[in-house]
Amino acid sequence: MQNLCINIPNREYEIKIEKGILKNSGKFIKELTKPCKVAIVTDSNVAPLYSQALISSLEESGFSSVLITVPPGEGSKSLKTLSTLYDKMLDFGITRSDLIIALGGGIVGDLTGFCAATLLRGVPFVQIPTTLLAQIDSSVGGKVAVNLPHGKNLVGTFYQPKLVLIDPLCLDTLSDEIFSDGMAEAIKYGVILDEKLFEKIEATPSRATISKIIDDVIYRCCELKKMVVEEDELDTGRRMILNFGHTFGHAIEKKYNFSGYSHGQAVAAGMVMAVQYGEHAGITPLGTSSRIKALVESFGLPSDAKIDKSSLLDAVKVDKKGEGNLVTLVLPEKIGKAVLKPTEKEKVWIW
Amino acid sequence: MQNLCINIPNREYEIKIEKGILKNSGKFIKELTKPCKVAIVTDSNVAPLYSQALISSLEESGFSSVLITVPPGEGSKSLKTLSTLYDKMLDFGITRSDLIIALGGGIVGDLTGFCAATLLRGVPFVQIPTTLLAQIDSSVGGKVAVNLPHGKNLVGTFYQPKLVLIDPLCLDTLSDEIFSDGMAEAIKYGVILDEKLFEKIEATPSRATISKIIDDVIYRCCELKKMVVEEDELDTGRRMILNFGHTFGHAIEKKYNFSGYSHGQAVAAGMVMAVQYGEHAGITPLGTSSRIKALVESFGLPSDAKIDKSSLLDAVKVDKKGEGNLVTLVLPEKIGKAVLKPTEKEKVWIW
Repeated sequence: MQNLCINIPNREYEIKIEKGILKNSGKFIKELTKPCKVAIVTDSNVAPLYSQALISSLEESGFSSVLITVPPGEGSKSLKTLSTLYDKMLDFGITRSDLIIALGGGIVGDLTGFCAATLLRGVPFVQIPTTLLAQIDSSVGGKVAVNLPHGKNLVGTFYQPKLVLIDPLCLDTLSDEIFSDGMAEAIKYGVILDEKLFEKIEATPSRATISKIIDDVIYRCCELKKMVVEEDELDTGRRMILNFGHTFGHAIEKKYNFSGYSHGQAVAAGMVMAVQYGEHAGITPLGTSSRIKALVESFGLPSDAKIDKSSLLDAVKVDKKGEGNLVTLVLPEKIGKAVLKPTEKEKVWIW
Repeated sequence: MQNLCINIPNREYEIKIEKGILKNSGKFIKELTKPCKVAIVTDSNVAPLYSQALISSLEESGFSSVLITVPPGEGSKSLKTLSTLYDKMLDFGITRSDLIIALGGGIVGDLTGFCAATLLRGVPFVQIPTTLLAQIDSSVGGKVAVNLPHGKNLVGTFYQPKLVLIDPLCLDTLSDEIFSDGMAEAIKYGVILDEKLFEKIEATPSRATISKIIDDVIYRCCELKKMVVEEDELDTGRRMILNFGHTFGHAIEKKYNFSGYSHGQAVAAGMVMAVQYGEHAGITPLGTSSRIKALVESFGLPSDAKIDKSSLLDAVKVDKKGEGNLVTLVLPEKIGKAVLKPTEKEKVWIW
């Protein structure tokens, strides 16, 4: 098993990575808390695959649980679904000394985490991410949120889990598309923080090849995220670097009503756009965007998106990273090193 | 002007108390932040009385503002109204470097504070409480929340304001009933923490008499709350003492669908019930409940409520202060000193 400890004062927690850990999760959760009620939130894709293993393991360790299943997809990251979760958990009689588990991808994790953060002003929370994207990104770092009609993740908070259990075996049931969604974020870590990781992915440029070393890739991505999050939990400075590709990516997702492009697809195209902007602005060496383009495409990810100027600018205007007329773009100075660049919102269109 | 500084690490803020401070609020807010967008939330009772003075003062100091008015009453502390606030603020183009102001009573403060805490993962927030209850209780300490069908304040978080401006002149426009709502909380502070304050209120047992010393009463209540909140921001121990009268009080409010009894009325009756329970349990000296009963009644507050056993127990079961089969009751050992008493939920009925 590989372990990482996220050292945020008073809210330290462990990430445990091991093939097959899901079916032993009760044992690790028992180390956190005495037997209590556990509300498990998952979606209807994940439920038939993994919920029974989790419930059985929890029961063996003396926990009583309820399974709450939401529809799959971004549409569930809404105030409406959130309201349903609150009601079902209170029907179950949950208290602050009980536990909420998110079993699923990033959507389930973000929604459930925000529910846990706000229900009764905070119920302890465990993440069991089942997609690559959730395992290397959204389950680590405590950002939880739901969407609004105005845009993604516009309502949220910072709420650290008590534990993250990552089972790489869960990746076996992912479609290629969902697997690649995660690869977009893995490539992101390489571009902004770790040239060696980027080169490692370039050397294994397909699902079949990278799957052989996926445990190490997950560990390294979590480790990189840990470094950034520990330095800036509340996202007021350094942590913005993780937003690479996301300003443009969010605009793309929004333009297509969160259904035309998946998050990873939008981030892949958004990274290429950001680097094209960086090249245009003289910050990123010419040729960098082609290299990133080739790598995202090798995983079947899009490297551009049809978006018009006004859709892009409208989305940039409500970007959470914006202040007044400026939006902070993340632009690589080279592969492995990115900088934050406050940019006039009106000027981010170069296409 | 009287000043208090709430010393919570990294989130220090000042409470400023002065007659007429509302019309100078722009000046004090300017000390916090450069000119920016300000979303003011108020209700339709308060708007015609005080919003223009606030808007003018903000404009004089270079702020642009939008006024968002919600219907008065507990019904607005809902996910539905919250959703409306999010949308209106995003329509206004608010960012994390702008500001949200709550102008009104506890309902507006709690709702607006939760909105500020969660919109864009946190927008700076100023409280301008206009009722006695909000001035001495809900605007201080960072508890923000909305209600659910299951009960009051079931969704919330801890989010400290950047500043609290208290204008005792605002109390002049309160009805006797709303004024007395605040007196219930003032009496609470006396019972749990300060015998001298309790005696001071006993010596001025009407609105007319206590109004002459209301600035001092507000200051002392804020000071007592400050002491408790600084010790236990996140309400995991000592702060529970402020819950005196609230476990029974919430049950009463819920039984009457948050419309039969105001919060202060329910707390007044709840305090008398709690002390009756304390006397029954041998913790509170006999006769204490009669003394509190007489004082709350002198302000026109109820000292009992028609509530049946099952309604009370159902509400206690979902009380946020509960853990498993236990609920933590706050019971006075004497006027001026209360203790926390974990109690079996099923045993809280003695009537």
